Amino acid sequence: MRQVDIIGADMTAFGPQIETPLVELGARAAIGAIKNAGIKPSQINIGFFANMQAGNITGEFTVGQNILWEAGVNRIPVFNVENACTSGASAFNLAWTSIISGMYDVAIVVGAEKLVVPNLGLLQAGATELNVLEGGVVITNFASRANLHMDTFGTTKEQLAMVAVKNRQHAGMNPLAQFRKPITVEEVLNAPMMADPLTKLSCCPNADGGAAVVLCAAELSNRFTSKPIHVKASVLVSGIYDQLPDLFKFEEDLRAGSMAYEMAGLGPEDLHVVECHDAFTICEIMHYEGLGLCPVGEGGRLVESGATSLGGKIPVNPTGGLLSKGHPLGATAVAQIVEGVRQLRGEAGDRQVEGAKVYLAECMGAEKFGDAKTCTIIILQN
Amino acid sequence: MRQVDIIGADMTAFGPQIETPLVELGARAAIGAIKNAGIKPSQINIGFFANMQAGNITGEFTVGQNILWEAGVNRIPVFNVENACTSGASAFNLAWTSIISGMYDVAIVVGAEKLVVPNLGLLQAGATELNVLEGGVVITNFASRANLHMDTFGTTKEQLAMVAVKNRQHAGMNPLAQFRKPITVEEVLNAPMMADPLTKLSCCPNADGGAAVVLCAAELSNRFTSKPIHVKASVLVSGIYDQLPDLFKFEEDLRAGSMAYEMAGLGPEDLHVVECHDAFTICEIMHYEGLGLCPVGEGGRLVESGATSLGGKIPVNPTGGLLSKGHPLGATAVAQIVEGVRQLRGEAGDRQVEGAKVYLAECMGAEKFGDAKTCTIIILQN
Repeated sequence: MRQVDIIGADMTAFGPQIETPLVELGARAAIGAIKNAGIKPSQINIGFFANMQAGNITGEFTVGQNILWEAGVNRIPVFNVENACTSGASAFNLAWTSIISGMYDVAIVVGAEKLVVPNLGLLQAGATELNVLEGGVVITNFASRANLHMDTFGTTKEQLAMVAVKNRQHAGMNPLAQFRKPITVEEVLNAPMMADPLTKLSCCPNADGGAAVVLCAAELSNRFTSKPIHVKASVLVSGIYDQLPDLFKFEEDLRAGSMAYEMAGLGPEDLHVVECHDAFTICEIMHYEGLGLCPVGEGGRLVESGATSLGGKIPVNPTGGLLSKGHPLGATAVAQIVEGVRQLRGEAGDRQVEGAKVYLAECMGAEKFGDAKTCTIIILQN
Repeated sequence: MRQVDIIGADMTAFGPQIETPLVELGARAAIGAIKNAGIKPSQINIGFFANMQAGNITGEFTVGQNILWEAGVNRIPVFNVENACTSGASAFNLAWTSIISGMYDVAIVVGAEKLVVPNLGLLQAGATELNVLEGGVVITNFASRANLHMDTFGTTKEQLAMVAVKNRQHAGMNPLAQFRKPITVEEVLNAPMMADPLTKLSCCPNADGGAAVVLCAAELSNRFTSKPIHVKASVLVSGIYDQLPDLFKFEEDLRAGSMAYEMAGLGPEDLHVVECHDAFTICEIMHYEGLGLCPVGEGGRLVESGATSLGGKIPVNPTGGLLSKGHPLGATAVAQIVEGVRQLRGEAGDRQVEGAKVYLAECMGAEKFGDAKTCTIIILQN
């Protein structure tokens, strides 16, 4: 199989950017990634744009063409991709497949989203679906999972809160993160209750932002960079739906993870840095388990041990994660890849994991009958 | 390069289907295509869903996962793709690339759209973009092109009207078309004026509908069908934007067409049937020229000659086209492929082109500075 490298990456700050149009958020990231890759826009053969809510919020479409035009890219095939929170990783997966096909050598993936708008109404998400109409909106789903995890494994509210505290601490080392002021376990527990046990500080914020990466066939990447980052695996799965899942674990993580580890020829013990989809504190704990960082049921104790903090055995969400870096949906999973590139190049500043060689990014989106509709895992190596 | 076949195809009727949800429109087509392919849902490795307006109209997302679940398909990678009117052909292009990559053997492409809704507001299309804010909405763009074509080449209003008359006549032979009652040149000319010279009968109607095809690596397709349809070319380009185009011709057709013909090892003289993006009558005339069915400027005279009618030298839009079959955006370009499969299998009923062996589908979407943002060409052979 043809090998693929990442040769350029960039992103905007995440957080409210009220005056900046969606196209500009994407274009800033795209221009930055192209510059970072050391290529000309005309050397890009195919482009993908990831976004989830532009159609809903402003009625915009074919936004990727507009963004790439602003970045000096035209003529080439451009695709607009939506896959909920995994939109960016899905676009990346398609770009990777396109290069593997041999039909393209260089691809750009851009993700951008504007969520800091009036009347966003994300609670409507999936509102044409039966389980949502019955009350299963995103936060109540994850509150149920949290309660089940606590009942089944003895996970504590304090352990849940420690995820938010840790990721806020990490965000303090990330100048692009939305929330950087340290918080305590007490503050998380005493924040306004959203859906018991999840308080406001247990939930990721809405953010605006853009991120982009440039991929290249590995046999050509040394034309552009002396520090190519190798894509060892890119996996996307959808849920099973037709079996009742154990709600205290992420079957999709286990399934996508085993596929990704096999593809990469690596295991969880080989990882040096992880970013995962910590939309709510409980998610990160369940992702520890789904990705094999600890046995199922041990996630609460893993965060409490400090193993997933910077300086620990396997730092998770060094950027601050969705919880503190922010969650501009289409940009989120692309930004995870940007962080992978920076960690593996040794360019992650204060949050650099020393000697990082293997990086994993996990993302998950939308729910149906207790199973994620889409789950992505990407493994990178320097 | 790995060869790819189409092994199954199906579609719903096009037209108002007020009581049918989007997911059901897509699922009906998907189930039909899977059955037509003679495969089990579990034999499909990857899925793509094309839609343009669901986010805008109902706020729905990850719709493809819901549709495929209804069709018995889950676990696999599923991608939601938007590329304006070419969404379906763009999804098809990605499915084709995925099989060429060698990572997947069988792919499904579904397109569906619900447009017959209150307050659709397609005039807002692109309304965050400068040229649209300045008045360049879709219909005025094409009215300008029509006037320029008439001024430059002597194309007549009657010739424009003949496109609508021909396609309505064809639709009379297509039980799935939205409008089947014959019309006359006089009726087209005397219909309410929308943007001179385009009257209401010169414009395609909004429709609901779904369409789906199943693709398979060619070396495996004989497991499923004795009548595989070979994909000879699938090309997607975006516009140039940075050069002022001649508005009386489609530069994107010329560029994508030459790429597709080269890929297929065929030329316009080899085609037996064509479907093209006749969103307005002038479009079909300009597509004749862009695809090389006649020299630039001769399109009006080509339709008048009867060459593009069923029974003529090169029938165009035997289904009735967008003008009479209807235009449910995400389904449109997939339905063009369904027609290609039916024509090349000899299953097109009253509108069958005898001995059809080579089929071309062209689609075009969205505009920026007088150039289409996306243009797709697919060539099929039996």
